[in-house]
Amino acid sequence: MNNRIYIKDLSLNKGAEVVIGGFVDVIRHQGKMAFMDIRDMSGKVQCVVLPGVIDKEFIDQIRSEWVLKIRGKVNERPERNKIEGKVNGDIELEILEIEILGRAKELPFEKDADVNIDTYLDHLPLTLRSEKATAVFKVQANILKAMREFLNSEGFTEFQAPKLIGEDAEGGANSFSLEYFGHTAHLAQSPQLYKQIMVGIFERVFAIGNVYRAEKHSTSRHINEYTSCDLEMGFIEDHTDIMKMETRLLRHVMKSLKENCAEEFALFSAEIPEVPESIPALKFRESQDVIKSEFGEDCSAELDLEPQHERWLCEYSKKKFNSDFVFVTHFPIEKRPFYTMEDENDLGYAKGGDLLFRGVEITTLAQRIHDYDKLVESMTKKGLNPEKFRFYLQSFKSGMPPHGGLGLGLERLTAKLLGLDNVKEATLFPRDINRIDNLLSSN
Amino acid sequence: MNNRIYIKDLSLNKGAEVVIGGFVDVIRHQGKMAFMDIRDMSGKVQCVVLPGVIDKEFIDQIRSEWVLKIRGKVNERPERNKIEGKVNGDIELEILEIEILGRAKELPFEKDADVNIDTYLDHLPLTLRSEKATAVFKVQANILKAMREFLNSEGFTEFQAPKLIGEDAEGGANSFSLEYFGHTAHLAQSPQLYKQIMVGIFERVFAIGNVYRAEKHSTSRHINEYTSCDLEMGFIEDHTDIMKMETRLLRHVMKSLKENCAEEFALFSAEIPEVPESIPALKFRESQDVIKSEFGEDCSAELDLEPQHERWLCEYSKKKFNSDFVFVTHFPIEKRPFYTMEDENDLGYAKGGDLLFRGVEITTLAQRIHDYDKLVESMTKKGLNPEKFRFYLQSFKSGMPPHGGLGLGLERLTAKLLGLDNVKEATLFPRDINRIDNLLSSN
Repeated sequence: MNNRIYIKDLSLNKGAEVVIGGFVDVIRHQGKMAFMDIRDMSGKVQCVVLPGVIDKEFIDQIRSEWVLKIRGKVNERPERNKIEGKVNGDIELEILEIEILGRAKELPFEKDADVNIDTYLDHLPLTLRSEKATAVFKVQANILKAMREFLNSEGFTEFQAPKLIGEDAEGGANSFSLEYFGHTAHLAQSPQLYKQIMVGIFERVFAIGNVYRAEKHSTSRHINEYTSCDLEMGFIEDHTDIMKMETRLLRHVMKSLKENCAEEFALFSAEIPEVPESIPALKFRESQDVIKSEFGEDCSAELDLEPQHERWLCEYSKKKFNSDFVFVTHFPIEKRPFYTMEDENDLGYAKGGDLLFRGVEITTLAQRIHDYDKLVESMTKKGLNPEKFRFYLQSFKSGMPPHGGLGLGLERLTAKLLGLDNVKEATLFPRDINRIDNLLSSN
Repeated sequence: MNNRIYIKDLSLNKGAEVVIGGFVDVIRHQGKMAFMDIRDMSGKVQCVVLPGVIDKEFIDQIRSEWVLKIRGKVNERPERNKIEGKVNGDIELEILEIEILGRAKELPFEKDADVNIDTYLDHLPLTLRSEKATAVFKVQANILKAMREFLNSEGFTEFQAPKLIGEDAEGGANSFSLEYFGHTAHLAQSPQLYKQIMVGIFERVFAIGNVYRAEKHSTSRHINEYTSCDLEMGFIEDHTDIMKMETRLLRHVMKSLKENCAEEFALFSAEIPEVPESIPALKFRESQDVIKSEFGEDCSAELDLEPQHERWLCEYSKKKFNSDFVFVTHFPIEKRPFYTMEDENDLGYAKGGDLLFRGVEITTLAQRIHDYDKLVESMTKKGLNPEKFRFYLQSFKSGMPPHGGLGLGLERLTAKLLGLDNVKEATLFPRDINRIDNLLSSN
């Protein structure tokens, strides 16, 4: 739009005549005057239509979410009307001319209305415009931007992992399959095999993209298409190098959020967590001991943690170490994927673990097996056919350094950071067992 | 790896004892001595094993692609052996100790061997390690990094577009479908509908991710999963704002490639193109006139450009305007998707077009229809059922600014920049009608 200035810059233009473009956030009629809050991507401003300036019938038709081009004059507010610390709290835009750029139909409800989750999800093109939803996805974009900054500065190369795959490292039960030119293909549950292959090319790689789980759960923790932030790095000593890298990554992300998203966090009364220089770590068996001694449940016969156990361990970590984050390492190797390395000094247990944050697991990490013969042996032990993985196995036939990596679920991290009840509120267009947009729900 | 230094930093450590980790690029035996080129993510260095330092049997087992940890001394080369302008051309690493980190099996061929495209693709975990392939994907990563830098600085917000969708904007013929909990879902052919929805939230958005075309072509131009770089922006005057934004985007990308990837381009004897401040633009009918007058073919009855026409127009643009890039705008609206805006001053033709580069189309761009009633009318005219798009249409019921955007195919751009014959050489793990990794080709 020619000559447009952004709303956030209005108060730098006191006394000037300017052109803005934006959405009508709200419109109020008051006798012969009208007031509108106009928002653009940069901020919001109160505008006033003085009597006689613009035809009343013209003004009367305008409703929320109409899109306007406005020529107006930036007036300083009288002292008593100024709002301290608010963008444009010291000015008001006196409207001289309006051009309608886009009309809205009658809205089913106002964008910021407090509606239930299903109504919210059925109307995302409208409800995502709410102040809170916009804040969520601004935070999410910032998380990714900060991750890329950090990983690029650490020598990681980003790559595009394929989503359309033949065999899946995570096994078939939770995989979506499709017909591919007369063959069966699957949607990737993770970029695991490809990021390992890429370690042979660039040593340090990362991939950020959608992954798919055909899980039939319908809970506030599950979505069937989510964004996985994956990294993999070569020439490590062991899995603790991955834990250290993740700690530094998270420290950078939280620092960036403090700098760029303080307002968004304030909107949710959410606190940006401190990441300790060294995140506390418990071995799986130690964590079971903690659960028993601190919370009275004996789960020592189990091979994995239940959701309630994760919540308890986070509670413990907060109390004992003042940390919102806690690593649990050395899960029983039999429950871990075939590519996970067993700890040679703690046989039966994995060189890796999970990162828990505010009650949920947000990351799984591990050192991987890099020796071809051991890898084939591990596959066979798990009942997998190495022949089906022969593309991937070429990497190991071609020589691989000790390596490891992690996967972090973006939506879950975002939800936990902002204290959202449901991971779907941290997913732009969530797909679940009942929903792709609003198509399934109404079929 | 503790105490490891990167190979590129060796010549800063003349005389010192250091530890490096890397792959054996090549090993040569010469009497009682052995020479190895070792590479890591940062560069390559020549190493020498002097007689008697390391057991000969131990050295003799080492082959290409084995992964080693090496302790050695950085020796300055005698003047006559120095290689000017080459990283580490002035030093050699005298090996004192070797630890084997990873063993390779017998390789089918050397990673840099000149093999045919099918053999190349069947062995990507090895062939991607070749100097040229590594260079291709370093360039590709740099393109995306530069795009993100530019778009972030222009106020665009990145978002994750869903790949699992209900209805597709581009129609059903070329869409992969899959069973989704008892319903039929599709793989997105573009993030089109979602990026338009997102204009209502952030005004300026971009999405970089995989898209899917179930095309049965098996050519050097087609892949079935590719990376689309999509942007969409609100409050435009018309499609020329998109053309200007793309021009500035490409100028930034080429500048970044010049700064960071000169060596990679040199490897392919490829030139990084100059992007004119204003890329020449022809209307579709003008381009047909050019084809007739300059190349003698009358294609004035056609509604689109053929590949040969695109090659001719690029040839013309290079000769006439000294530009590797040329826009062709105002294609007949009947052949364009339903969301494309018709030029009110040139009825029957689209407000948008294609960007051609070195003989192929790399971008389609346009202003979109932003008025709800006009959009429904356009859908109906194209034989589409608006009811199937009611999720998307909520954006337009909720008010939308004039907007437009573009999609750019990453692999095609990379291939054309480096002068690669086949787009599959610019795709990490290409999927085509015969291939997912090497699964289909051998079934």
